[in-house]
Amino acid sequence: MDFSLSPPLQALRDKTRQFIAEQVIPLENDERQSSHGPSEALRRELVGRARAAGLLTPHASKALGGLGLSHVEKAVVFEEAGYSWLGPTALNIHAPDEGNIHLMEEVATAAQKERWLRPQVAGQLRSCFAMTEPAPGAGSDPAALSTIAVRDGDDYLISGRKWFITGAEGADYAIIMARTEDGGATMFLSDMNRSEIVLERSMDAMDACFTGGHGVLRFDRLRVPAGDILGEVGKGFRYAQVRLAPARLTHCMRWLGQARRAQDIALAYTRRRTAFGKPLASHEGVGFMLADNDMDLHTARLHIWHTAWLLDQGEQGNYESSRAKVVCSEAEWRVVDRCVQMLGGQGVTMETPVMRIFMDMRAFRIYDGPSEVHRFSMARKLVQAAEKDADVERGVPEAICSIPPLQH
Amino acid sequence: MDFSLSPPLQALRDKTRQFIAEQVIPLENDERQSSHGPSEALRRELVGRARAAGLLTPHASKALGGLGLSHVEKAVVFEEAGYSWLGPTALNIHAPDEGNIHLMEEVATAAQKERWLRPQVAGQLRSCFAMTEPAPGAGSDPAALSTIAVRDGDDYLISGRKWFITGAEGADYAIIMARTEDGGATMFLSDMNRSEIVLERSMDAMDACFTGGHGVLRFDRLRVPAGDILGEVGKGFRYAQVRLAPARLTHCMRWLGQARRAQDIALAYTRRRTAFGKPLASHEGVGFMLADNDMDLHTARLHIWHTAWLLDQGEQGNYESSRAKVVCSEAEWRVVDRCVQMLGGQGVTMETPVMRIFMDMRAFRIYDGPSEVHRFSMARKLVQAAEKDADVERGVPEAICSIPPLQH
Amino acid sequence: MDFSLSPPLQALRDKTRQFIAEQVIPLENDERQSSHGPSEALRRELVGRARAAGLLTPHASKALGGLGLSHVEKAVVFEEAGYSWLGPTALNIHAPDEGNIHLMEEVATAAQKERWLRPQVAGQLRSCFAMTEPAPGAGSDPAALSTIAVRDGDDYLISGRKWFITGAEGADYAIIMARTEDGGATMFLSDMNRSEIVLERSMDAMDACFTGGHGVLRFDRLRVPAGDILGEVGKGFRYAQVRLAPARLTHCMRWLGQARRAQDIALAYTRRRTAFGKPLASHEGVGFMLADNDMDLHTARLHIWHTAWLLDQGEQGNYESSRAKVVCSEAEWRVVDRCVQMLGGQGVTMETPVMRIFMDMRAFRIYDGPSEVHRFSMARKLVQAAEKDADVERGVPEAICSIPPLQH
Amino acid sequence: MDFSLSPPLQALRDKTRQFIAEQVIPLENDERQSSHGPSEALRRELVGRARAAGLLTPHASKALGGLGLSHVEKAVVFEEAGYSWLGPTALNIHAPDEGNIHLMEEVATAAQKERWLRPQVAGQLRSCFAMTEPAPGAGSDPAALSTIAVRDGDDYLISGRKWFITGAEGADYAIIMARTEDGGATMFLSDMNRSEIVLERSMDAMDACFTGGHGVLRFDRLRVPAGDILGEVGKGFRYAQVRLAPARLTHCMRWLGQARRAQDIALAYTRRRTAFGKPLASHEGVGFMLADNDMDLHTARLHIWHTAWLLDQGEQGNYESSRAKVVCSEAEWRVVDRCVQMLGGQGVTMETPVMRIFMDMRAFRIYDGPSEVHRFSMARKLVQAAEKDADVERGVPEAICSIPPLQH
Repeated sequence: MDFSLSPPLQALRDKTRQFIAEQVIPLENDERQSSHGPSEALRRELVGRARAAGLLTPHASKALGGLGLSHVEKAVVFEEAGYSWLGPTALNIHAPDEGNIHLMEEVATAAQKERWLRPQVAGQLRSCFAMTEPAPGAGSDPAALSTIAVRDGDDYLISGRKWFITGAEGADYAIIMARTEDGGATMFLSDMNRSEIVLERSMDAMDACFTGGHGVLRFDRLRVPAGDILGEVGKGFRYAQVRLAPARLTHCMRWLGQARRAQDIALAYTRRRTAFGKPLASHEGVGFMLADNDMDLHTARLHIWHTAWLLDQGEQGNYESSRAKVVCSEAEWRVVDRCVQMLGGQGVTMETPVMRIFMDMRAFRIYDGPSEVHRFSMARKLVQAAEKDADVERGVPEAICSIPPLQH
Repeated sequence: MDFSLSPPLQALRDKTRQFIAEQVIPLENDERQSSHGPSEALRRELVGRARAAGLLTPHASKALGGLGLSHVEKAVVFEEAGYSWLGPTALNIHAPDEGNIHLMEEVATAAQKERWLRPQVAGQLRSCFAMTEPAPGAGSDPAALSTIAVRDGDDYLISGRKWFITGAEGADYAIIMARTEDGGATMFLSDMNRSEIVLERSMDAMDACFTGGHGVLRFDRLRVPAGDILGEVGKGFRYAQVRLAPARLTHCMRWLGQARRAQDIALAYTRRRTAFGKPLASHEGVGFMLADNDMDLHTARLHIWHTAWLLDQGEQGNYESSRAKVVCSEAEWRVVDRCVQMLGGQGVTMETPVMRIFMDMRAFRIYDGPSEVHRFSMARKLVQAAEKDADVERGVPEAICSIPPLQH
Repeated sequence: MDFSLSPPLQALRDKTRQFIAEQVIPLENDERQSSHGPSEALRRELVGRARAAGLLTPHASKALGGLGLSHVEKAVVFEEAGYSWLGPTALNIHAPDEGNIHLMEEVATAAQKERWLRPQVAGQLRSCFAMTEPAPGAGSDPAALSTIAVRDGDDYLISGRKWFITGAEGADYAIIMARTEDGGATMFLSDMNRSEIVLERSMDAMDACFTGGHGVLRFDRLRVPAGDILGEVGKGFRYAQVRLAPARLTHCMRWLGQARRAQDIALAYTRRRTAFGKPLASHEGVGFMLADNDMDLHTARLHIWHTAWLLDQGEQGNYESSRAKVVCSEAEWRVVDRCVQMLGGQGVTMETPVMRIFMDMRAFRIYDGPSEVHRFSMARKLVQAAEKDADVERGVPEAICSIPPLQH
Repeated sequence: MDFSLSPPLQALRDKTRQFIAEQVIPLENDERQSSHGPSEALRRELVGRARAAGLLTPHASKALGGLGLSHVEKAVVFEEAGYSWLGPTALNIHAPDEGNIHLMEEVATAAQKERWLRPQVAGQLRSCFAMTEPAPGAGSDPAALSTIAVRDGDDYLISGRKWFITGAEGADYAIIMARTEDGGATMFLSDMNRSEIVLERSMDAMDACFTGGHGVLRFDRLRVPAGDILGEVGKGFRYAQVRLAPARLTHCMRWLGQARRAQDIALAYTRRRTAFGKPLASHEGVGFMLADNDMDLHTARLHIWHTAWLLDQGEQGNYESSRAKVVCSEAEWRVVDRCVQMLGGQGVTMETPVMRIFMDMRAFRIYDGPSEVHRFSMARKLVQAAEKDADVERGVPEAICSIPPLQH
């Protein structure tokens, strides 16, 4: 067992930390931001700075122009990038592009990669991932997918409606999940500048950190050639899983950076602000929150590291990434909520970045599967594992082991 | 970074797991136990079995007859041992002997080691650690120490009263903390079969897993030669720290085993017992508890592993062991409380071991420093660290940094 | 709206408080107690004292020799009685007799009342309520009832097995729930001194406050004349509801007294015990626990009062008594757990009554329906109520109201 | 004891409910709102509707044109008004005007009332309450007040800086807290249209429900005649208390309405939206949240009613209003957070009002004293009460009672 970071990784961590502090945080108050995220102009400036620093798209393979980071390396670098809400945009590791790049690299054809992936890795274009649908379509339960793709000669005609499509406004291409005639789900690639794709509106969301906001898209018989199918017909859900497990984990990493930022601000504030004759941090009621925050931050980091290591070993890590997602999204949220509380009035105003982090982060307990869906899926897997592992019952009383199973 | 266990460590883990399942759990209902713990006869039988299996006192150095386990190795082995409440007694790694062995090995003279430590490592004698005092003496705040040691020629005369002395009844020797004339605290070694040591009574505690229970001891001018001082005069608190950081962590390890046992029993039960037409485990309300348990167990394990690794790197780990102690004692407690709930009536009766674990474990949130003392100490250290680390304030708004410090 | 207590009720409250302090608490260390509760001799002494004080069986009607208390009056008196774990036994308001008396008064025939109820109200005999069964029978889900009653001429022959039968050992009569040929459940009355009733064993439970402990009973073709049916054939579940709603609430009342006792002890201790230079109670970390306890105690009391008042208005209060049961069992538990923590070592030993209260109370989150069963039942009723109440949707966005219902 | 509402109060409740549903909710999407709250034009329209409905300023005395509601009556009516975030503005019971009206009615001279209070009750002008200061001034600890008022002939010259002054932008008059030469705090009244009062900026807050937002004010030797002192010199803190206890409670009432609204929306949504083959509400994980919400809502309501009743009995209720504030602010927050979670993506966008309520409510755990300040103040009072009440120690073991007090 070894928790040390290799010297090159330490150097990369320090370089990223310095980059964020010196090149990104000073732009946090830049006016080229709205409630729908940084503007494309700001994004390009940020990306340019990361490119100059040699930090752009570090998770992409070296062949494509990235740094080819392992999952553990991503854990370290993405936490640093997440320290500023602009950091992931700068490094080109924000959602959904980060996960889309990963998926494209795994599944796309050479031609698809040249057309869409290579310029995306270079920071020149953006993408969106069109899966979630309004009721009664696919929300937390993907089986309810209602967008359909009908074969028409060598093409498909896609019709349906999607919402909560992060980055939709201004995206250059989309990965679209639709149901094909076989009943399965298939992923399609399409440029976004098509008349059959309508951005009905951008949703007013609590967060404001995602370039392109969250859009409602309508596909009106969007024509897609069969050659633009991503991977194979009917394997959409399988690819979604390929994308999901690591994508969940990178959320955990980036938000860990944001939560650490909030804690640093709370530490700075409570060390200085006094009440009842001593610094706030010297009050147990405040000090306990600082300590709880450190526990939660470290818990999140350990789960991330462990799961990233498993993925680096070649494991699918579906269970572990679910677990890490629930643990991290809830632990990091507690941290930020406590920071708001410690900062008092300044926690609920834009006097500090903490309110912004609070608002940006709330959705993390919901997207990529709300905690409740993950918990139930974990329970099912725990039961299945227990059924296969005799060791687990070596200390169980006979009286329990002899309970008759359910009569159907 | 590497979370893998070496093949020898995996083998040792499996061997311990098998030993507990086959040699220890069958003795759990042995009648040679009372509310004050296993009897000496049962302890000797258990120790004999561990000796035969080559698993006795594995944390002691090889020179003394142990296996010389590193902290990480202890993390793995002690969790397995803790799976049964009799396991730590069997392996001779129960409190307080486990920590006393560690302290003696670090501080005792060669003569002291021959006299007390070597037979203790061999499982032939037991010890206690006499530090805690009734009000107004030293409870959570060691500075209030009121037992005194007065110089008398080449000897010291120790007078005072101690309580919550685990293992006192039947212990062969004691490590006694007393205040010396310099005002500092000093540790003394003494055999227990002395007329000036009175075991006033054994306390009726919620737990029943510690051999020798928890005693109230009175020292009536106990004469101790200067040669039986453990280490140097006045360094008692420093040695207590030497003992505490790893001792805290081994508690975390052993109780992790107990919590895992409770979860295994809850899994077994909720897979079989049905209500409202399906197994309990298929009810989300129950499944969520199973999932939360797994999250808490894994969180505890990761904190233990990380802190153990730090100690293996030669770090003192005071902060980290405090943090691990709070995280683990609270996470493991939640696990066991949920198991009680899942088992329903059987969770609050001796129909299963879970009630026993619940009662044994509650004190863990209190001893070796209650959570509240650790949290406050952690907060102080976080503030001190923030004062020294400029990085921490790189993302803090100027308005906060310019708050004037407290005027005294 | 009026939260005041009438002067007679205040007087009764003060009288009960004084009785508990002067006549009951001094017997708490009486040796006529075991892990299966107070002995019958101790019970008789306690009942004698309550009779002398005019406080015996206060919830029974005046016609039967009680005080005919309303539910609100019970709320006040039972909380006081619960202040000592012997108080409910003294006043003859402990479970299950308290609820059985209520049920008998509602449902039993005049003859049944003369035979069993009148002497029970006088404190001369005890009863038990035989409903819960081991797997795969009726646990939290009463529909799984497996004890059967077969018609045999004018009698019934009851066969089956019950466990967690509180008060079984030494009970004079039982109310037995069994399935009759119509498929429904029926309640039967029977003396306990019958050869066809076997007390297989008393279970080792965490609590020790119930006279007669918790027994495992077996009925081997127990012959019961049709005249000893309680109420009508097939209405067993309906009567169980009659019994349950108020019985749940009286649990809340009694345990509120115990929780208040724990808080009083914690207050006394933390005011006196010092650490780090000031009383424990002056440490925010401890003070916050005292404050949280007061919030929880008052929350429990308000829910009890409100639900009791509803019952006094003639409402069934099934929903509200479920809600009060969950709120109170969890709030009161938090109180006692915090008291254990504040008392440190003394919280986990019999040095104070708090450990005893902790162990006695844990089952309250489980019996009369575990929190999880109540929560789910509450959710179902909330949804049903929302379907009927147009007001509830006056502020709901149209987009939600137009979501199509599930297609079956 | 009586939890019923009088028929006139029921009628007023129903009338308010109908008014909010029909006259206020339809304006919730009115464009005359910004992140700094409703515009003055929108406020005047809302006030006009309430005036027409006979519901304007219902807490003011009848003499001044209000309905002269008791605290209990306010509890019922304000909860209804709070159901829409525009409701309190409509009824003229929003903060800080609601509390200022109460304070003015208690303390102001007849002339002051005619000049400022009467038109305020009529909804014609608005006020602000200038107490909180940036570091190192008075935040949670009022003793740190740094705004000063220097005597100058018959006038005072007030200099200082205030922030988080709710309603500052557009307010007609201010109540200003300043330190006078005697060292005490004094309240001054002043019109806002004075050149010596500078609104430096409006703060960007998470909430958007307060007309006039939250301003930063600077007083540059603001000249105030002695006749415009509110009450007596040096009694500022005492008046602040007069204002605070009921003002805290009215926050609890209004936010209870908002929390109930969120729950109604969550109920509507989870009844209709399906996942994994059944409505969300039929999933235990969701149903438990619905049940927990109902428990929290009812807990909040009971604490409000009880404290309001105490105030109606003439009690100061400082302790109880602190307790209610902590209980309600935390319970209501949990409700809204759970609603966000149940609504999934729609909970974190403006698709429903729940996101808005979430953002508006977060500050409630902070203002009028953060939970931590209240908890510590409650603890101090609990200890003081225990010292005076012998009853509290009737069940405390002698061993605790005999612990020697702290030696100073």
